[in-house]
Amino acid sequence: MSRGFREKLHEVIYEADTPEGKLFDVVLLIIILISVIAVMLESVAGIKAVYGYELDIIEWVITAFFTIEYIARIISVKKPAAYIFSFYGVIDLLALLPKYIGILFPGLGFLLSIRALRLLRVFRILKLVHFIGASNQLVTAIKKSRAKIAVFMFSVVILCVIMGTFMYMIEGPEAGFDNIPISIYWTIVTLTTVGFGDITPITPFGQFISSLIMIMGYGIIAVPTGLVTAQFMEENKVHKNTQVCPVCNADAHKDGAKYCYNCGAKL
Amino acid sequence: MSRGFREKLHEVIYEADTPEGKLFDVVLLIIILISVIAVMLESVAGIKAVYGYELDIIEWVITAFFTIEYIARIISVKKPAAYIFSFYGVIDLLALLPKYIGILFPGLGFLLSIRALRLLRVFRILKLVHFIGASNQLVTAIKKSRAKIAVFMFSVVILCVIMGTFMYMIEGPEAGFDNIPISIYWTIVTLTTVGFGDITPITPFGQFISSLIMIMGYGIIAVPTGLVTAQFMEENKVHKNTQVCPVCNADAHKDGAKYCYNCGAKL
Amino acid sequence: MSRGFREKLHEVIYEADTPEGKLFDVVLLIIILISVIAVMLESVAGIKAVYGYELDIIEWVITAFFTIEYIARIISVKKPAAYIFSFYGVIDLLALLPKYIGILFPGLGFLLSIRALRLLRVFRILKLVHFIGASNQLVTAIKKSRAKIAVFMFSVVILCVIMGTFMYMIEGPEAGFDNIPISIYWTIVTLTTVGFGDITPITPFGQFISSLIMIMGYGIIAVPTGLVTAQFMEENKVHKNTQVCPVCNADAHKDGAKYCYNCGAKL
Amino acid sequence: MSRGFREKLHEVIYEADTPEGKLFDVVLLIIILISVIAVMLESVAGIKAVYGYELDIIEWVITAFFTIEYIARIISVKKPAAYIFSFYGVIDLLALLPKYIGILFPGLGFLLSIRALRLLRVFRILKLVHFIGASNQLVTAIKKSRAKIAVFMFSVVILCVIMGTFMYMIEGPEAGFDNIPISIYWTIVTLTTVGFGDITPITPFGQFISSLIMIMGYGIIAVPTGLVTAQFMEENKVHKNTQVCPVCNADAHKDGAKYCYNCGAKL
Repeated sequence: MSRGFREKLHEVIYEADTPEGKLFDVVLLIIILISVIAVMLESVAGIKAVYGYELDIIEWVITAFFTIEYIARIISVKKPAAYIFSFYGVIDLLALLPKYIGILFPGLGFLLSIRALRLLRVFRILKLVHFIGASNQLVTAIKKSRAKIAVFMFSVVILCVIMGTFMYMIEGPEAGFDNIPISIYWTIVTLTTVGFGDITPITPFGQFISSLIMIMGYGIIAVPTGLVTAQFMEENKVHKNTQVCPVCNADAHKDGAKYCYNCGAKL
Repeated sequence: MSRGFREKLHEVIYEADTPEGKLFDVVLLIIILISVIAVMLESVAGIKAVYGYELDIIEWVITAFFTIEYIARIISVKKPAAYIFSFYGVIDLLALLPKYIGILFPGLGFLLSIRALRLLRVFRILKLVHFIGASNQLVTAIKKSRAKIAVFMFSVVILCVIMGTFMYMIEGPEAGFDNIPISIYWTIVTLTTVGFGDITPITPFGQFISSLIMIMGYGIIAVPTGLVTAQFMEENKVHKNTQVCPVCNADAHKDGAKYCYNCGAKL
Repeated sequence: MSRGFREKLHEVIYEADTPEGKLFDVVLLIIILISVIAVMLESVAGIKAVYGYELDIIEWVITAFFTIEYIARIISVKKPAAYIFSFYGVIDLLALLPKYIGILFPGLGFLLSIRALRLLRVFRILKLVHFIGASNQLVTAIKKSRAKIAVFMFSVVILCVIMGTFMYMIEGPEAGFDNIPISIYWTIVTLTTVGFGDITPITPFGQFISSLIMIMGYGIIAVPTGLVTAQFMEENKVHKNTQVCPVCNADAHKDGAKYCYNCGAKL
Repeated sequence: MSRGFREKLHEVIYEADTPEGKLFDVVLLIIILISVIAVMLESVAGIKAVYGYELDIIEWVITAFFTIEYIARIISVKKPAAYIFSFYGVIDLLALLPKYIGILFPGLGFLLSIRALRLLRVFRILKLVHFIGASNQLVTAIKKSRAKIAVFMFSVVILCVIMGTFMYMIEGPEAGFDNIPISIYWTIVTLTTVGFGDITPITPFGQFISSLIMIMGYGIIAVPTGLVTAQFMEENKVHKNTQVCPVCNADAHKDGAKYCYNCGAKL
């Protein structure tokens, strides 16, 4: 294969600066979305019974496209192995493999749902077209409060284990608290205020402890919220304007300010 | 029709500066509320059986009023077509049409519920009487964080599709996870901490993944909350300083600013 | 009755500055709590069957105490009518009346639960002993964002009415959406992320609309949270320190600052 | 026992500065986690039936280890009584006791779940290794808003008691509102937006009051969130400026302060 072709291919597939690259991304995005919708519809028994044949054809066309794309990606990069074993490389393979496996080993048909992971491929395209530029601030803020969120999560998990064990001792199997893991599951359901209602306490004491768990869950949601909010505001403050007045050294100017608010000097 | 009458009509219907205009708005507001309550009561089988006749009369009176009002609106504006095809023009038509359709085609009786959309008309009146002035800041703050909220919502939807597919593979039809769309519905129910409990995981692994989804849902609610809060505070900050530059009319100066950030003039 | 006795009585009952006044408040607080717990226990069939007689005696003692207290309150204030028809006057009467009514008209026994309203009397005592001083800032912040919260609540209610009507049209009585009011009730249950699960959508389109309602409910909780948080921070800022430097006019000093942070002058 | 050995033992067990101390902590942490997982698995009937013997052996090994550790802790501290009756001393005893009690009094087998409390021991280790340094700010912020959170919690509890009593009067035993305590439990379930659905209102008026409770619960979650967020940001603000006055050692100066707020010295 000529070197020029490979470079051209790389530009189209991996970059989004040229019209061809953009077109490729848009087409890929549409195909991924169609593919995911097809996988969803296929899982609905009623739709599969009627449109199973059409969905199968769509799926084969998409699988063929993904196969060609996968091969093109391998031959256009300089280090194919690095791509193949990268996160997106594995996702790309998982996007096309299930259909082939399904025909070779019909018993593994349940694997077909893995194809919904194709949706993860969307993130690569978005990365390419710099769409998520708007989400940078969001990601930064979350990353910075990561340590505190981890401490919070860790405390919540320990709290759930302990309260779950208590509830198991109080309620027991009659109320659906069959064992400690399921009691912990119930505690998480309750503390996060989800409250399915598949398992509910029936003893007065169990209901009292449940009330405590609920009020705790209702209150401590303030902690992650407070952390992230405080971080967002820090970001807002920091990213506002980094200009410093050359005359009086005042900082924290308004965005787009042309003159210092303190001494009137030109910035 | 005399031009003076049309102008007078326009003033009464579309404006709220004159006493007649205000009276018209208040009367319309009351009629809309009565009408919506009547539609609600009519939908209750027990009430319809007893008071069906009275409700029908009220409804016809209201429909007659809305019909006259609709005609008055058309003849009083300069460009009737623009009004008819505007958002509120369509709502106004939908407010009166169902009753006529119901008598012409009794089979389309289910359309009668559309009349509840009359409630949307309330917003126009509120707009007129400048009631929602208080909500401007609210709307501005939400609009400004729209881009980030969109990125967040997009990530949540992708997360729900992927987790929903996982849950479908883990739990399957025995637990009510009949197909991928219904699994995604369940994931949304769980992640948003609603937790109906109509579908619940029954396998230990499914309950483990559910716990992860719940804790995620419990934690990531911090993101929209943080975004909107940070934005509200930005708004508060900006509105703090009400100084306007005497030279260039720039506003929104920093607290304690002595010189205009735009032209450098002394404030 | 001697004027001195009436004044003394007023001091004990209505004030909390003297040792007798404080003692009276503490005793009253304890009696109210005992009384509320007794009312609760009485409502539990199993406990009433065994301890019904004891609870009845406790209740009569409490009712006697409340009757004496009520009379004492009337004779010790200058304008008895003003007290009798005040909010707390009515609550005080409701606290003792049900027991007498229950003996005169046994058929009205269900009124006995009204006695739980005695708990509201706790607020008066707390007011007296200045306990809620700590909650002033809290109340102020909530009051200041009242207008915005009202606009938000109003929008939520209209949203619930419109979405509830849609769900009634989509799902109908088969799924438990019997009429529009019950559909609105369901929408509120869903939007507020409570999610009882007594009524759940069964059609795919209904589940799709439900998903939208849930995501909306998950997202718009950010609005009241943001409003209240922004208000709390405003309060923090304002209440921090109102000192202004007499030399350089700098404000926003640290709490407890003795010297100006800007020019070093004594505050 | 030689004094040197006791001191060495104390260093290994209670401190984390030496390599031996760190190793001890890591080993203890792993054993605690294994032990808690074993207790959980033992509570699952299916697993106990198959691996009951293995789990029992693991449990005895762990209990033996904890017993030796407990004795070592007692002999290595100067005031054994102080340790034995301290919080962690009791937890340590509860971590090993149930297994011995279970063999002496087989009827008390349900006490075995107490062993899950061993998880609490994790906090001591974390304390030792200064892991929770990251959580200091978190804990400080929560502690500082404790008073306000208490007032809020108190108001929520009173609100729940009053609304619960109302719901009991409106709905009564037919709808599952058997008595006032259970109605209060239901109100807490609803107000905290958990919403199990084991008890749900069936009368229109009950559903209306429920809607109010839900909207209240949806709205007032803003209060603890706002409090904690505002506190977090105060903390952020305070920790910003790391200057310390060279004269009086006061810290936490305002950003940009030129003079000490405490003694007026130049910073």
